[in-house]
Amino acid sequence: MTSFSMDNMAKGSKIASRVAAQLTTIEKNALLNAMADAIEAQADIIINENSKDIAAGEAKGLSAAMLDRLLLTPERVSDISNAIREITSLSDPVGDIANLSLRPNGMQVGKMRIPLGVIAMIYEARPNVTAEAAALCIKSGNAVILRGGSEAIHSNLALAQCLHDVLDSQDIDKNIVSVIPDTSREVIELLLKQRDSIDLVIPRGGEGLIRYVTENSQIPVIQHFKGVCHLFIDKYAALNKAIDILINGKTQRPSACNAIETLLVHQDIANEFLPLAAKALADAAQVKIHACDNSIKFFKNAEQASIEDYHAEYLAQEIAIKVVSSFDDAIKHINEYTSDHTEVIVSQDTSRAQKFIRQINSSVVMVNASSRFSDGGQLGLGSEIGISTSKLHAYGPMGLASLTTEKFVVLGDGQVRP
Amino acid sequence: MTSFSMDNMAKGSKIASRVAAQLTTIEKNALLNAMADAIEAQADIIINENSKDIAAGEAKGLSAAMLDRLLLTPERVSDISNAIREITSLSDPVGDIANLSLRPNGMQVGKMRIPLGVIAMIYEARPNVTAEAAALCIKSGNAVILRGGSEAIHSNLALAQCLHDVLDSQDIDKNIVSVIPDTSREVIELLLKQRDSIDLVIPRGGEGLIRYVTENSQIPVIQHFKGVCHLFIDKYAALNKAIDILINGKTQRPSACNAIETLLVHQDIANEFLPLAAKALADAAQVKIHACDNSIKFFKNAEQASIEDYHAEYLAQEIAIKVVSSFDDAIKHINEYTSDHTEVIVSQDTSRAQKFIRQINSSVVMVNASSRFSDGGQLGLGSEIGISTSKLHAYGPMGLASLTTEKFVVLGDGQVRP
Repeated sequence: MTSFSMDNMAKGSKIASRVAAQLTTIEKNALLNAMADAIEAQADIIINENSKDIAAGEAKGLSAAMLDRLLLTPERVSDISNAIREITSLSDPVGDIANLSLRPNGMQVGKMRIPLGVIAMIYEARPNVTAEAAALCIKSGNAVILRGGSEAIHSNLALAQCLHDVLDSQDIDKNIVSVIPDTSREVIELLLKQRDSIDLVIPRGGEGLIRYVTENSQIPVIQHFKGVCHLFIDKYAALNKAIDILINGKTQRPSACNAIETLLVHQDIANEFLPLAAKALADAAQVKIHACDNSIKFFKNAEQASIEDYHAEYLAQEIAIKVVSSFDDAIKHINEYTSDHTEVIVSQDTSRAQKFIRQINSSVVMVNASSRFSDGGQLGLGSEIGISTSKLHAYGPMGLASLTTEKFVVLGDGQVRP
Repeated sequence: MTSFSMDNMAKGSKIASRVAAQLTTIEKNALLNAMADAIEAQADIIINENSKDIAAGEAKGLSAAMLDRLLLTPERVSDISNAIREITSLSDPVGDIANLSLRPNGMQVGKMRIPLGVIAMIYEARPNVTAEAAALCIKSGNAVILRGGSEAIHSNLALAQCLHDVLDSQDIDKNIVSVIPDTSREVIELLLKQRDSIDLVIPRGGEGLIRYVTENSQIPVIQHFKGVCHLFIDKYAALNKAIDILINGKTQRPSACNAIETLLVHQDIANEFLPLAAKALADAAQVKIHACDNSIKFFKNAEQASIEDYHAEYLAQEIAIKVVSSFDDAIKHINEYTSDHTEVIVSQDTSRAQKFIRQINSSVVMVNASSRFSDGGQLGLGSEIGISTSKLHAYGPMGLASLTTEKFVVLGDGQVRP
């Protein structure tokens, strides 16, 4: 490990990124299919390396949940290969020109999608991210540097070896995919300084990791701190839709960042809606309630909601509930507590739905639909490389197009500027 | 000045940005017209304040060129007002939804353009930037924090006062436009830490300023270091077009970042093209030549080109010239020395033109047109707020759309996730 140089890896990635950018869609898909096959063919080796991570994790006292996320089985290895194969079916954004406009002097001007260059991913334990992130970066014509959690280092290096074997056999610069072998924290600091080589850093993990990367990076960072998603039941809501959307948003998968954390209810519908909500939340998952003064009476065993509850990302069967006096009051609450992830209004009134869409600038704004759809796959982007809750470059779930940018293309016939 | 708080200004801007985001196009245009009128009406006051800057600049020994850039006259004040009025004619990107697609479950999904929020501009001497940048930010629904050069502080504050008067008279939060009254370097450091309030920093000025901002900012920065633009005369070039594009690109305004700095000539056309180029460059502006071994014989008084010449942004009637042995050799040279600004090929061969467009990923890539068109106005963006030579968020000349981002909008009818 002592011979590892972050500097050299970053420089190698930059050179390889020019190769990646020039691959055709056919070449990239062939590469991805070969990688998927190689991972399945070498499943034994990968699982054997994974068992070293599991043993180390057990020795280190990792939780059962962590160990389960880390574990690779033959089925899970096949899942990784299948996820890579699915990426071949996504349309390749590189080379797209949305529109060529004609300038008064006869020049044509358009914008063409091109890869960003080199993407660095910093993520926590799950080894499948290694293969899937590499596949998404390759499909979008980028080189990638992967820095997974130290707990998964053997698994990650084994997966990288598979990918390198395929690149080698096809005589393509293998630096298109790099896995950092050094598991120290210092190497992340060095990584975040490589702004001449790396174009974008995507951290995936807890809020601490993302803050650390944001504060220390000289390279642009995709930020996703947390999801405090709001559901606002307007006074013109259809009650059945409101209940369905509440129960789906809160209880279907509470550990997801697109689960509902705060329910806002218009006072004019509160007496009608809240008893139904109380029954549905109890029936569905015994959801723990933190309620405001005006709603607490509708719930059994509810706790008084505090300011902290309105900031909370519970990630559990737990919800904050507040009655708001008006539409504007709902907007004001959301603007104050938003994490810029996803907010939903349930209303049959088109003016109010439109106003909600205009006034809330979170990354995903929904009318009469479950927040659980706030996901790249569900929104039609195909696989998701991450989600951004900061507005620069990408905002919301990120698909392949978020790993590209646009350059100007000008087609002339000898024009000069007067 | 001691009572100035960067923190409070940034927080005030963030609150005001919600107001700016909700203004309609009609309201924003009315505001801009009123601002243009107010600046003309208060021209005397502005020019009087400007004379303090001029006096201080003379005392400080600023160059005649610097003093001229700083100077405001009645005509120049009118120019500022007219530039603001022109911005009213630009189409407002806010609220645009390019495409609403229908998901299999009946939900409609689209992306709507929204303002970024708060933009900070850090720039050098010219006071007109204060008014024009403010107008572009307002038109795109953003709040703006302006930090001009200390040399122009009285002029900038006088312009800001005009804008504030208009905002006050229309009862709109005047923190939509803020001019930092503190001219110390320390205040820039404080500004660059306000990542909870400010969404984007746009520095405009020399390479030193931009590096300083990039290295010290926790907020995303639009980078534009320099323009080392290449012109490649392919062996299939039309000679007359090649000469026109060379002379226009190099000599029309050599101080511009989109002027040509390096000429690459395919060896198969060198004997024919270079004598014509030598005559044209001498006739047009006595251009100083730094030539490679294979081209030096065609020029009088040419110097030998060094590696430094290929890196040089001369910003003067001066050019580096190199004969390349092949198309690939030209690509290789550009990839090595590019500043990611603008590169041009002159060729009548469609395959080679296409290959150039595919293989060069600078922010502007041109076929048979002058590099001088690499400018927001010329490319059809309307006014230009800046230019980006880094790939994140915006790449190339930036118009109003570059001051916005896109949020997801989902229109459902009660859908929940299975």
